[in-house]
Amino acid sequence: MKKVTVYITLKAGVLDPQGKAIQESLTALGYEGVTDTRVGKVIELNMEDGPDLEVRIKDMCNKLLANPVMEDYRFEVEEAVQA
Amino acid sequence: MKKVTVYITLKAGVLDPQGKAIQESLTALGYEGVTDTRVGKVIELNMEDGPDLEVRIKDMCNKLLANPVMEDYRFEVEEAVQA
Repeated sequence: MKKVTVYITLKAGVLDPQGKAIQESLTALGYEGVTDTRVGKVIELNMEDGPDLEVRIKDMCNKLLANPVMEDYRFEVEEAVQA
Repeated sequence: MKKVTVYITLKAGVLDPQGKAIQESLTALGYEGVTDTRVGKVIELNMEDGPDLEVRIKDMCNKLLANPVMEDYRFEVEEAVQA
């Protein structure tokens, strides 16, 4: 088993109202000098290993996990820790 | 300016219905062998540097960005790229 971590972020130029709300809240709480706040997602999953692992991950990202029109993704693969 | 990336994930043991939905959708799409799907957030922000930078980040996470009861967070600090 492999542990796969997928990071999904909005493409540059896409408006991020959630990030803007966080930034305004931080300023309201007194944290000055915070800019360019963007919010994305992390998806962690365990997958069976195989020679086509990276192909399967990219396929899953394009079909379900990310919206390729508005979002970029990158992923890391590491050995899953046995529970 | 520093670029700060905060990763927020649910603590182990906390139910993750969004992760479960993603896992079931992946199985329905034919991706077998996907388990332990968990969803978290990534928050990227630019902050002014200073000796208390890490303290400020932890403070922001505990007060606004993460829910310390249910979520864990970790962060990375790197040099901000000038736009």
